[in-house]
Amino acid sequence: MKKKSLPLGSVYRLLEPGPVVLVSTLGVRRANIMTMSWHTMMEFVPPLIGCVISNRNYSFDIINETRECVINIPTVELAKQVVGCGNCSGRRTDKFRKFGLTPVAASVVAAPLIEECYASLECRIADDAMVEKYNFFVFEVVKAWVDAAKKTPQTMHHRGMGRFMVAGDMISLPSKMK
Amino acid sequence: MKKKSLPLGSVYRLLEPGPVVLVSTLGVRRANIMTMSWHTMMEFVPPLIGCVISNRNYSFDIINETRECVINIPTVELAKQVVGCGNCSGRRTDKFRKFGLTPVAASVVAAPLIEECYASLECRIADDAMVEKYNFFVFEVVKAWVDAAKKTPQTMHHRGMGRFMVAGDMISLPSKMK
Repeated sequence: MKKKSLPLGSVYRLLEPGPVVLVSTLGVRRANIMTMSWHTMMEFVPPLIGCVISNRNYSFDIINETRECVINIPTVELAKQVVGCGNCSGRRTDKFRKFGLTPVAASVVAAPLIEECYASLECRIADDAMVEKYNFFVFEVVKAWVDAAKKTPQTMHHRGMGRFMVAGDMISLPSKMK
Repeated sequence: MKKKSLPLGSVYRLLEPGPVVLVSTLGVRRANIMTMSWHTMMEFVPPLIGCVISNRNYSFDIINETRECVINIPTVELAKQVVGCGNCSGRRTDKFRKFGLTPVAASVVAAPLIEECYASLECRIADDAMVEKYNFFVFEVVKAWVDAAKKTPQTMHHRGMGRFMVAGDMISLPSKMK
């Protein structure tokens, strides 16, 4: 695997820009993948991630059972897989097989990392108080992996109805903001 | 004002890509502006937005008092203002004046829109159950404004420490995802 361990304090830099992510889980029948864009950082260390996972999704059931998942960040080379995973259900489809993605054993959780994604965050549920009302989970990242060679990853950012903004130029300004 | 009313059902398309936003509020002493990146959509209609606003910020106090704010989306032309607003406190600074931004009367809330931002979302607190534990507010968007001429807005996406990814190319794939 090209990815190396990333200090947990740096996780926010991966998610704060708002990329589409692929959530991988391990169900009883099979591993599954879900496309997701409704997420936010909630704390730096330990990194907390809040996200909405609809209770209509197979991934919702698995996460409620197993209490864990992996949040993987794809780049634009995976555009077809990102949309494909969002347009079918793991109840009827083995998405790893259908979309040619490779499950890799994680180090802390049972759910697999997705090898083709440039970053993967192993997560456990930290707080489920808002799941019933909003399908809103708070995850703690317990282990993070990143391909450090990808300095300016061309992440995808969903603008609705299959339209995505692809990450463009980087700019840098003097700032005290973390 | 160049911005026109936007149907509430389209609000998610503005925030789902994860842009840095400027949160404007109206305090007793003055209107204020806060730079924020930790936000997520939580519902399509009525649009719900979850976001973290630190209790160290002046904006936190104002929002707790007034129960409302405006979430404005800047483009890269406002990069200096975005970083500037994130690096000083409204307790000591009139940020509208200091950064040359123009307050415009909103239609539903008392907090002002920021004219220079291409989109502005008038918000009221919908749920404050997670404020004490996480500084996490759930806002309902009660009125939305957008400059419809900006089809591909060059939004800014924070990657930490003053580094921003600027929105790049648009791609489109056939998708059933909303």
